[in-house]
Amino acid sequence: MSLPNHFKLVATDGAARTGVLTTPHGAVRTPAFMPVGTAGAMKGMHWREVRDAGADIVLGNTYHLMLRPGAERVAALGGLQNFTGWQGPMLTDSGGFQVMSLAQLRKLSERAVTFRSHIDGMSFELSPERSIEVQRLLGSDIAMQLDECIRLPAERSDIERAMQLSLRWAERSKRAFETAPAGYMLFGIAQGGDVPELRRASARGLVEIGFHGYAIGGLAVGEPQSVMLAMIEEATPMLPQDRPRYLMGVGTPEDILEAVARGIDMFDCVMPTRNGRHGMAFTRYGQINLRNARHADDPRPLDEQSAWPSTCGYSRAYLHHLVRSGETLGAMLLSEINVAYYQSLMHGIRDAIAQGTFESFRERIRADWAKGDIAPRSA
Amino acid sequence: MSLPNHFKLVATDGAARTGVLTTPHGAVRTPAFMPVGTAGAMKGMHWREVRDAGADIVLGNTYHLMLRPGAERVAALGGLQNFTGWQGPMLTDSGGFQVMSLAQLRKLSERAVTFRSHIDGMSFELSPERSIEVQRLLGSDIAMQLDECIRLPAERSDIERAMQLSLRWAERSKRAFETAPAGYMLFGIAQGGDVPELRRASARGLVEIGFHGYAIGGLAVGEPQSVMLAMIEEATPMLPQDRPRYLMGVGTPEDILEAVARGIDMFDCVMPTRNGRHGMAFTRYGQINLRNARHADDPRPLDEQSAWPSTCGYSRAYLHHLVRSGETLGAMLLSEINVAYYQSLMHGIRDAIAQGTFESFRERIRADWAKGDIAPRSA
Repeated sequence: MSLPNHFKLVATDGAARTGVLTTPHGAVRTPAFMPVGTAGAMKGMHWREVRDAGADIVLGNTYHLMLRPGAERVAALGGLQNFTGWQGPMLTDSGGFQVMSLAQLRKLSERAVTFRSHIDGMSFELSPERSIEVQRLLGSDIAMQLDECIRLPAERSDIERAMQLSLRWAERSKRAFETAPAGYMLFGIAQGGDVPELRRASARGLVEIGFHGYAIGGLAVGEPQSVMLAMIEEATPMLPQDRPRYLMGVGTPEDILEAVARGIDMFDCVMPTRNGRHGMAFTRYGQINLRNARHADDPRPLDEQSAWPSTCGYSRAYLHHLVRSGETLGAMLLSEINVAYYQSLMHGIRDAIAQGTFESFRERIRADWAKGDIAPRSA
Repeated sequence: MSLPNHFKLVATDGAARTGVLTTPHGAVRTPAFMPVGTAGAMKGMHWREVRDAGADIVLGNTYHLMLRPGAERVAALGGLQNFTGWQGPMLTDSGGFQVMSLAQLRKLSERAVTFRSHIDGMSFELSPERSIEVQRLLGSDIAMQLDECIRLPAERSDIERAMQLSLRWAERSKRAFETAPAGYMLFGIAQGGDVPELRRASARGLVEIGFHGYAIGGLAVGEPQSVMLAMIEEATPMLPQDRPRYLMGVGTPEDILEAVARGIDMFDCVMPTRNGRHGMAFTRYGQINLRNARHADDPRPLDEQSAWPSTCGYSRAYLHHLVRSGETLGAMLLSEINVAYYQSLMHGIRDAIAQGTFESFRERIRADWAKGDIAPRSA
C-alpha cells in the first residue's frame, strides 16, 4: 500500500536534491543534518543553541530512551518534545543498532532480539512491533524500522541472511505502524553490507513494501569511503525519486558532500559533538585540534568570517586553554561551534542545489579544506 | 594614605546596606554575589548566562590562572575580560588560599610562599608583591592582598602569628599596588580565626594601612555558622562605614541573609555551580535533590513562579532524568538555575534594604525555606 508523501522535492542539480519534509512538529529543509540527542539531551548543548545553529530536526536513540527514562514514562509526560523542551521534529532510530553495540547477552531470533541493559542488567525484548510501539510512545515524528545491522567485513551468506531478516522485519514494522496518526512517518532501512546485488535487492524489497521514506543502513561502520559511496550508488536508483533518502550514521563533512552528490537527503552523526568534546573544531579550513600548543598565544578566532558568534568571537588561545584545563565550557563551545559548522555547510549545500551551482560549491568547499588551517601568527 | 573611594552607599536598613561599587569594567550593585569562574570559565555555564542571571561581577582564581594559562599570557592577550569574553567586573583572589589547599610542597616564609603546581609539579613563588603583579597582569578590577589563611580549629598562638604575618603582607601588597591605574582596587583581608580580639586587631590594623575595601577571610572553613557570625560582628565595627565589605567564600543562602543583616556587601562561593553538578537545585523552598526518585514522573517545574526560564520551563522529571543519566545538560541547567536563584535572592535583598523592609523580607524568605519543597504529585 502506498503511504502518503510528506516530502516535496524543490530542486535537483545532477543527482543532488533539495526539498522540504513536513512533519507534525515542523518542516525539515533537505539535505538535512540531524545532530544526535542521544538520551533526550544533546551533549554539552542547550536545545536553543541547536535551533539557533540552524538544525531543523534532531535524532533520539530509542535504545537509550527505552532503558532510561522509559518509553511509557516519556509518553505520560507528553512525548519527547514536551519532555525535553526541543520543540522541533525528532527522528528516532529503532534501537537495533545500539542493542548490537551496547547491550549485554544479546540473543537474536526471527521474532525479536532479547538483551540485558548495559545500565542495570535488566532484561528487555525488542521486536519490530515493540520498537514501533516504543517510538510511537516517544512521539517521534519519524520512526525507523527495526533491522539487523551487521559489522563489516562479513561473509556474504551472513550479510544476506541479515538483509532478508531485515526485510521481513520491515513488513512487520509497517503493519505495526498502521495505527499511527496522519503525518507521522516510518522509514524502511536498506541493508546488504558491501554486496552490490544485495543492496539492490534490499532497496527493491523495501519499495515493494512501501514506506514514507528510505534509509540506507549498515554503512559508516569502518569500511572505506569508496565502498560506502559505491553502495549508495547501488541503492538509490532503486528508490523512488519523490521520497526522502536518509544515510544513517554519516558522517564527516567530506562524506556528506559526496553523499549529497549521489542523491542523499538526510544525515545524522555524533561527530560534531563527540569531536568537540575531544578538542576538535570543524571549520571552513578543515578540522583543527585546539589541544595543539600552537594555539596557546593566538588571539585570533577559529574563523573570523563565520556568522556563528562563538566561532568568530572566542580566541584560539581561550579555546586552547579551556580544552587543556578540561573546562566543561571548552566542550560546550566546541560542540556548538561544530554543530553550527555542519548546519552552515548544509545551508550552503541547499542554496547551491537550488541555484544549480552544487558542483562549483563542492569544489570550492573542498579547495578550502585542502588549504588547511590558517598559519600560526609569527611570533 | 587614604585611597580613593569607589563605593557609594545608597541605603541602610539596620546594619544591612545597599550600594554601588564602580569598577573599570562597570558597576556592581551590592549586596553582590560573585559566581566563581575558577580558571577563566564558569563550570557548565556560558558567560552570557552568568550575565543574564543577574551577576554584575565574577571571581577568578589567581592560583589557577597563574599556573594555566599564565598571567603574562593573559596580559599579552588583553587581560581577563578580553581573554574570556566576560565583559564585566572581575575580582581575583590572591592565590594564597588555593596554594594552601591544592599545591604541593608548600613552604611559607616571611618573604613568600613557595610551592609546586598540582598540575605538573613546576616550582612557583608567591610573595605579596608577585600576587599583586599577577593580579595586575590579569587585569583584575579588584585585587586581594596575599594573606595566610589557617584552618580551624587552631592554637591561638598560630592564629595570631598568621594574622600578624597577613598584616605585614597587607602593607607590602599596598605598596606593590601603588602603580595601578586609577579606578582599580585593592582589598585588605582581616584574619584572626575564631578569636574575637584578634579579629578586631586585624581589622583595625588593615584600616590603619588603608584599602579600597575590606574582606573578612578565614571563615566558612568548617566552623559553626554561629562562630562565623560572631566573628563578623567583631570585625565590622572596626571597618569604615563608607567602604565595601566582602565575606570571602560564603556561602549558603542562609549564610548570606545573616551576613547581610550584619553589614556585609559582597560574597563569593562555588556552591551554586558545584551543588548543581551534583544534582542539587536551590529554590524558593530550599534545596531540592533532583536525583531523588520522587521526581521521576513529576511534570512540574522546580518553581513555576520563578522568572528564570529553565527554573520554570523544565520539568522535574526531565532534570531528574538528566542527572541520573549523567548528561552534561543536567549539570549545565542546574548550574544556571542555581546561579539565577542566588542572583534573584541578592536582587530581593537589595530591593528590601532600599525599601527599608529587609527584616520582613528575611522572615518571608526563611519561612519559605522552612516550608520545604512542594509535595510530590499524588499518583
